[in-house]
Amino acid sequence: MNNEEIKDTINLMSNNSNQTDKFATLNKVINEKTGNRNDNIMKTAIIQQSNNAGIDTNKAKLAKNIAECAKNGAELIVLQELHNSLYFCQVEDVNYFDLAETIPGPSTKFYGQLAKKHGVVLVTSLFEKRAAGLYHNTAVVFENDGSIAGTYRKMHIPDDPGFYEKFYFTPGDMGFHPIQTSVGKLGVLVCWDQWYPEAARMMALAGAEVLIYPTAIGWDMHDEEDERERQRDAWVTVQRGHAVANGLPVIAVNRVGTEEDPTGQSEGINFWGNSFVAGPQGEFLYEATTHKEENKIIKIDLKRSEDVRRIWPFLRDRRIDEYKEITKRFRD
Amino acid sequence: MNNEEIKDTINLMSNNSNQTDKFATLNKVINEKTGNRNDNIMKTAIIQQSNNAGIDTNKAKLAKNIAECAKNGAELIVLQELHNSLYFCQVEDVNYFDLAETIPGPSTKFYGQLAKKHGVVLVTSLFEKRAAGLYHNTAVVFENDGSIAGTYRKMHIPDDPGFYEKFYFTPGDMGFHPIQTSVGKLGVLVCWDQWYPEAARMMALAGAEVLIYPTAIGWDMHDEEDERERQRDAWVTVQRGHAVANGLPVIAVNRVGTEEDPTGQSEGINFWGNSFVAGPQGEFLYEATTHKEENKIIKIDLKRSEDVRRIWPFLRDRRIDEYKEITKRFRD
Repeated sequence: MNNEEIKDTINLMSNNSNQTDKFATLNKVINEKTGNRNDNIMKTAIIQQSNNAGIDTNKAKLAKNIAECAKNGAELIVLQELHNSLYFCQVEDVNYFDLAETIPGPSTKFYGQLAKKHGVVLVTSLFEKRAAGLYHNTAVVFENDGSIAGTYRKMHIPDDPGFYEKFYFTPGDMGFHPIQTSVGKLGVLVCWDQWYPEAARMMALAGAEVLIYPTAIGWDMHDEEDERERQRDAWVTVQRGHAVANGLPVIAVNRVGTEEDPTGQSEGINFWGNSFVAGPQGEFLYEATTHKEENKIIKIDLKRSEDVRRIWPFLRDRRIDEYKEITKRFRD
Repeated sequence: MNNEEIKDTINLMSNNSNQTDKFATLNKVINEKTGNRNDNIMKTAIIQQSNNAGIDTNKAKLAKNIAECAKNGAELIVLQELHNSLYFCQVEDVNYFDLAETIPGPSTKFYGQLAKKHGVVLVTSLFEKRAAGLYHNTAVVFENDGSIAGTYRKMHIPDDPGFYEKFYFTPGDMGFHPIQTSVGKLGVLVCWDQWYPEAARMMALAGAEVLIYPTAIGWDMHDEEDERERQRDAWVTVQRGHAVANGLPVIAVNRVGTEEDPTGQSEGINFWGNSFVAGPQGEFLYEATTHKEENKIIKIDLKRSEDVRRIWPFLRDRRIDEYKEITKRFRD
């Protein structure tokens, strides 16, 4: 606080009659002036939904879901990866570049207005057109006044049958930086990033208060059921592991439903849902179903992260003198 | 193979009558000469046991358990952390430095003889006296001929009430290097290392075929049961996460039983056992009880790691250009 703000605070305090009120007022003013929140509870909503080929239909459904979550008290709302459209990366087709938009652009206007209207911080995932022939998979975070709080360009890009992302997305060049918002400092990463402990650690070291993963991951239904279960469980486990290793909550939001392979070569992808929120010991705060659309509000206690880091001070003991070769492709 | 070895091989082959036999012989000889194994199955034993104040009693029990595991087909046997004694770090007492031994020393002689006698690769965990006033928590791996295959000095040293390890152990100065043995390249780490994704990654990048954690971790029984469960589950989860992130099996061996606090200030530590082996997707191959002594043989298919890494090629897409700040204490 600067001197002017302290004077304001004292003036405000003098209008209150008793000591308790004065401290409450002081606390509120300090929090408002410093951007601190009045409590440590972050009311977070996840929206897990299925998509179809109609962009406007998907966006309208999201608008409705966002309104519902806000009405139910959400302060932060997290959407799944590439929520405007079908998961178009099942095939390599230059026509799909038509789906990409500039940032800012029509979609950031649309979601910015929703964030403002409902007074929520909103984490979105867009197909960014940076230039002709240069596209990214980009998360855009909106402040609750509708402004863009920050963006993150997906750093790790997958490529395997049915997930041809290297064709569409240039790997991010903005590094790993959390985005400051009124609800906290958000370590926003995207999908394939979730398999990389380095990404989570980079965000934690930069002061992220929560790790957030919009995702689009699913099963090839030709795989046996036990293999499908191992995959789903591995996906949950590695992200819960990031929560534990960094003493941070994790929010992962995935889509549901089956989307056809436009080439007809495969049976498409069955997106496994299972969006979840874990606390800083990796404990489940919520775990969604694998097949249903869901809007869910989860209260995340940000204070608990420091409590956990006090009993498990992993950051204290890191051997930073010996990690240098993590920047090598392989130690051979 | 050198020329002499190739000659030997051809001589051996000429003693066989048919083509199939010749190839089988060639394969066997090449494997023997090059140190490759004839199959991809690593028959691994874990010994989860409780200890008492009698060093000789503990060692005798271990010798009996090692013999039993070898008899049942184990090729690799992994012991828990500091298996010779009680977990003495519950209190800071200079007299406990008497427990430390040089490497090589009496304990390496004892375990080397057992490894040779039973023809097994043996992972042990010793209190190393390097010099007067300089001690380490050191894993020693024995080859199946009784020789020392390699050592690893615990790199991350914890210190919290009841686990005063910073008093006893100087942090390791040998870095993260897997140990080559006849059963595979072992990424041996110790206990507190298990919370650090960097340690697992460094081992994986150096070609480790399996991650191994001798451990001594337990509950403060004053904690509520739900907190105790979160801790145990976090411990399992973060290590399964290393398996997933690196596409490698993980072997964790912990002790069981309650050991008193010599100061009487606390109720001691209830070691939670729960030793486990996970495959390269983090899937459980075995999970021990939280309260019983157990010898268990688990077959680990090392070939599966490459299969998993082919469908999830995380090593392909690492953003090594952007991980540099992992070597910072904090990115502030």
